[in-house]
Amino acid sequence: MKLNVLFSPGNTDELYFTGKTTVVIDVLRASTTIVEALKNGAKDVVPVATVEFAVKISGGMFCGQTLLGGERNTKKIEGFALGNSPLEYKSEIVNGKSIVFYSTNGTKAIVKAKFSEHLFISALTNMNAVAKHLLELGSDCVILCAGNNNLFSLEDSVCAGALIEEIINLEKTVLLSDSAKAALGLNKSFGKNKFNTLTESEHGKILIKNGFNKDLEFCSKENNANVVPVYSNSVIKTLG
Amino acid sequence: MKLNVLFSPGNTDELYFTGKTTVVIDVLRASTTIVEALKNGAKDVVPVATVEFAVKISGGMFCGQTLLGGERNTKKIEGFALGNSPLEYKSEIVNGKSIVFYSTNGTKAIVKAKFSEHLFISALTNMNAVAKHLLELGSDCVILCAGNNNLFSLEDSVCAGALIEEIINLEKTVLLSDSAKAALGLNKSFGKNKFNTLTESEHGKILIKNGFNKDLEFCSKENNANVVPVYSNSVIKTLG
Repeated sequence: MKLNVLFSPGNTDELYFTGKTTVVIDVLRASTTIVEALKNGAKDVVPVATVEFAVKISGGMFCGQTLLGGERNTKKIEGFALGNSPLEYKSEIVNGKSIVFYSTNGTKAIVKAKFSEHLFISALTNMNAVAKHLLELGSDCVILCAGNNNLFSLEDSVCAGALIEEIINLEKTVLLSDSAKAALGLNKSFGKNKFNTLTESEHGKILIKNGFNKDLEFCSKENNANVVPVYSNSVIKTLG
Repeated sequence: MKLNVLFSPGNTDELYFTGKTTVVIDVLRASTTIVEALKNGAKDVVPVATVEFAVKISGGMFCGQTLLGGERNTKKIEGFALGNSPLEYKSEIVNGKSIVFYSTNGTKAIVKAKFSEHLFISALTNMNAVAKHLLELGSDCVILCAGNNNLFSLEDSVCAGALIEEIINLEKTVLLSDSAKAALGLNKSFGKNKFNTLTESEHGKILIKNGFNKDLEFCSKENNANVVPVYSNSVIKTLG
């Protein structure tokens, strides 16, 4: 089993992912929010790459059972029911609902990787569940960091390293690419206290400035959600 | 002074570099070879983004005083006088000559960053000289890793971290982006023995397979060249 990491989606085109097993990570905050929504009973999450498309499809086939969620540059989008804070996605709000979801980096990365044979979403909150499932599958895997406007982000890269560590703890014989080795090294250097990793990251600092301190605390928790979000036929559901 | 690192050129377009101070790194082997050629008296190095363009300009205006150098996927190009091994660029061969130079990753990264206000080339062999000059300039700086076919490479990222360490050792008050912090962390994790860094990298392994062991030894030496290659008006010369 070989593991590779892409530190941002900017390096690759959609066809790169054809037939691959891919895990998308956007710790702050899209992947944490998706995990939380599904954990709290959302029927599915429909990731979209543009706000316009979110509005279009939410007003059509999904009408009634649909919530619009997401953010643009950390702020909730006008007319959307929910922002991109995982704390908003409580059971009483999302249970049984489809959520059409847009975020600056996360959903764009997911949509870019849509041709993957298997496409999963990981945050710090559900790494262990994802690691176990990847080992059951046994195929080579690309971990795609959503990054920050197509550039590197520390929190996603550290999470990629933490996910690799979870996999290695379960199975010693994985092969690591240069970038997978680097992510593992970054988790060792910067990942000892995940809350600190998030508060000291560029994106974390912006979120703190905008009053989302509690989100950072929430997103920094490791392995409190036994959920493997899987993308298939344009929607993300819980595996199994 | 702010430092930022791009782990590959794939994330950005040419205009990103407009007005910036940029350092391009391709340890294996383009930037090491450029440093060596200039150290050994080459008049200048003309980096080109395609083999076709190399052949075109070498047959024209530079005729007589020009050498064609470079590689495609580690191999010397048919009809070229020199490959991409720094060991070939000896004084008796390159002294006084213009070298039209193409390499799979390095020269493409240099050409991509051509709109930079200041554009320098660094390898492990000349980091200290580059660090000193950057501090004299005092402007913010982007370190661009040439990477491997637009993807991450461990040796360039570790070199970026080592260059940042050189800068910090001279001036404590630099600000680091997420990726600059990460590069520094990677140099701490993987850069203690630079020869090992190179032999264990993906690109290093390919070079060893192709018989270039001595190149890895040469490219791993730190700070034995007091040369700052600077790109201006389409050619790279020694600063000063």
